[in-house]
Amino acid sequence: MPVIGVIGGGQLARMMIPAAVALGIEIRVLAEASDSSARLAATAVGDYRDARTVLDFANGCDAITFDHEHVPQEVLRALVAAGAAVRPGPDALLYAQDKLLMRERLGALGVPMPDWARVESRGDLAAFLADHGGRAVVKTPRGGYDGKGVRVVGAADGADDWLADGPVLVEELVSFRRELAQLAARRPSGEVRLWPLVETVQRGGVCAEVIAPAPHAGDAAERAAAEIATTVANGLGVTGVLAVELFHASDGRVLVNELAMRPHNSGHFSIDGSITSQFEQHLRAVLDWPLGDTSPLADWSVMINVFGALPSERIASALGHQPSAKVHAYGKGPRAGRKAGHVTAIGDDLDDVAYRARAAAAHFDV
Amino acid sequence: MPVIGVIGGGQLARMMIPAAVALGIEIRVLAEASDSSARLAATAVGDYRDARTVLDFANGCDAITFDHEHVPQEVLRALVAAGAAVRPGPDALLYAQDKLLMRERLGALGVPMPDWARVESRGDLAAFLADHGGRAVVKTPRGGYDGKGVRVVGAADGADDWLADGPVLVEELVSFRRELAQLAARRPSGEVRLWPLVETVQRGGVCAEVIAPAPHAGDAAERAAAEIATTVANGLGVTGVLAVELFHASDGRVLVNELAMRPHNSGHFSIDGSITSQFEQHLRAVLDWPLGDTSPLADWSVMINVFGALPSERIASALGHQPSAKVHAYGKGPRAGRKAGHVTAIGDDLDDVAYRARAAAAHFDV
Repeated sequence: MPVIGVIGGGQLARMMIPAAVALGIEIRVLAEASDSSARLAATAVGDYRDARTVLDFANGCDAITFDHEHVPQEVLRALVAAGAAVRPGPDALLYAQDKLLMRERLGALGVPMPDWARVESRGDLAAFLADHGGRAVVKTPRGGYDGKGVRVVGAADGADDWLADGPVLVEELVSFRRELAQLAARRPSGEVRLWPLVETVQRGGVCAEVIAPAPHAGDAAERAAAEIATTVANGLGVTGVLAVELFHASDGRVLVNELAMRPHNSGHFSIDGSITSQFEQHLRAVLDWPLGDTSPLADWSVMINVFGALPSERIASALGHQPSAKVHAYGKGPRAGRKAGHVTAIGDDLDDVAYRARAAAAHFDV
Repeated sequence: MPVIGVIGGGQLARMMIPAAVALGIEIRVLAEASDSSARLAATAVGDYRDARTVLDFANGCDAITFDHEHVPQEVLRALVAAGAAVRPGPDALLYAQDKLLMRERLGALGVPMPDWARVESRGDLAAFLADHGGRAVVKTPRGGYDGKGVRVVGAADGADDWLADGPVLVEELVSFRRELAQLAARRPSGEVRLWPLVETVQRGGVCAEVIAPAPHAGDAAERAAAEIATTVANGLGVTGVLAVELFHASDGRVLVNELAMRPHNSGHFSIDGSITSQFEQHLRAVLDWPLGDTSPLADWSVMINVFGALPSERIASALGHQPSAKVHAYGKGPRAGRKAGHVTAIGDDLDDVAYRARAAAAHFDV
């Protein structure tokens, strides 16, 4: 039986468990704490920044993959040096860890992006603002997620605090019609499969809702997104799931916003809405097994994130009112604003599907 | 977070894990051995016939359910006496444990069955054979499964070995067109939901293949099966999943063959083919949560059992040739003839679906 080790015990590791159970794969998790979301499969609790801890954990695993992209390069390279199959590998993960490197590399691959620049000083930022209508998005190169490490600035001193720690990325504030995401998977021997393009709706910089497929993107955007994801997956040598977050700009361009090299919130719909879920596909890709059919199980899927908590009695109430809704609880203790679960509905009529998903999710509103 | 304890660590317990993970339910398994199929969720290894072992295991569980029906009545009743929510409870399980009691009880409920009799001697068997064309099916009241404890006899001495241990059940050898199964679930507060009627194909007394829905059963048989399952679920006070194995007799009658009060092989298709799988429904029922929509995800599902073993390289080869097939491996060591996994395909054209399922399953043929 193949053994996959997952570094990080969050909900993404948790949601790999059902796929591993189905395929007869043994899954082991290196968790941050004993009460992690993926505790059922945790075989170790420790610090993923410590090479010794990670090497010990990896011993006996046929492949190593990730719940998050924060494992330091030196730890990743120690794993590779020790003979571990690290998927995705450090050379690919680098571009998911550092947004400045990512922009440089995507530029070299000719992938369409917002205008961007490396900013080391107020002067750099002032120059970029002057060229882009006086407002721009500044991002820390590392460590940002769910809207953290991202801000809109309108003045040259708007990134002073971050600049004290080193260069930042500045990007054109894209005027967009909608945000999209293209999910893909690539296995080491090269096979790439894409899911249909989806629309993501953010609130407060955090993904709130995903509609699959994207209802109004159009053929040209679908083709552009598929080409971008394929180029990125192959160009960066990604193994496992790749999520490309995209802007569908007001002028019709499809531009890369962010990359994630792991199962991603924009693909949670696939658990209930696709022949092959992103979690199953990720495990297959990580083992270099053939990838699965990504066809939808229904015309439409709508996924709504739940924040804070999913108390049992609310789960029962949501299930009682919406018997066709699929509720996913991440087994986390309550904490305001934290992703604690999601709800998916699927069906042939988008209005009805969205209604059922939102009605079920509303049971978890405060 | 609710806690469900499952007694028995076989593949049915294993397949409850993904449903528990999704719904944020903690699942604990009392396994027979450390290498059980459900070892990922095993919190104890011990003998389910030992009341102390089972009571210790049940401590801290919100509900207790089962991978199999072999837990002795005295252990079940000790659990109830200790305040455990045992689902299904001993009064219901009795009828899944003892086929003579089951026949008596179903008779009282007016459920259609093959002719049957309690046989205590050669003389009893001779009389039944004389009334039924000289051939009949003899079953041990307890402990039979997958064709074990069942034999066709044509002479009065055909059950001598079993009669030495006590009375046996004799049944009319039903001339049937096909075998069917009606899967249902019932929660303690009374809600009952049914899946579509399925056809089961047996080879050597063991389920080989399931087609959902049953292609040629017809409306009358569907109505009869639904009424039977509802009557049995309510009449016996079943909680959790109930599988009613049925003969569709040559004369059109729908007759109860066997009962199982747990997720059942005839419902494995529902993991990939239904909005709510039998495993999710079972956990919901056991917690007395509202039951889920049992609608199909496609017009047809075909499930094929795999016996013996599912080596990784065969899994990869099956997935490579049939990217839409869903392969389920039970994490068992190889053993000839033992159910080791199953394969499901779904879609709109039965011939195509059956082809894809069988083609994928063929990768595991010797």
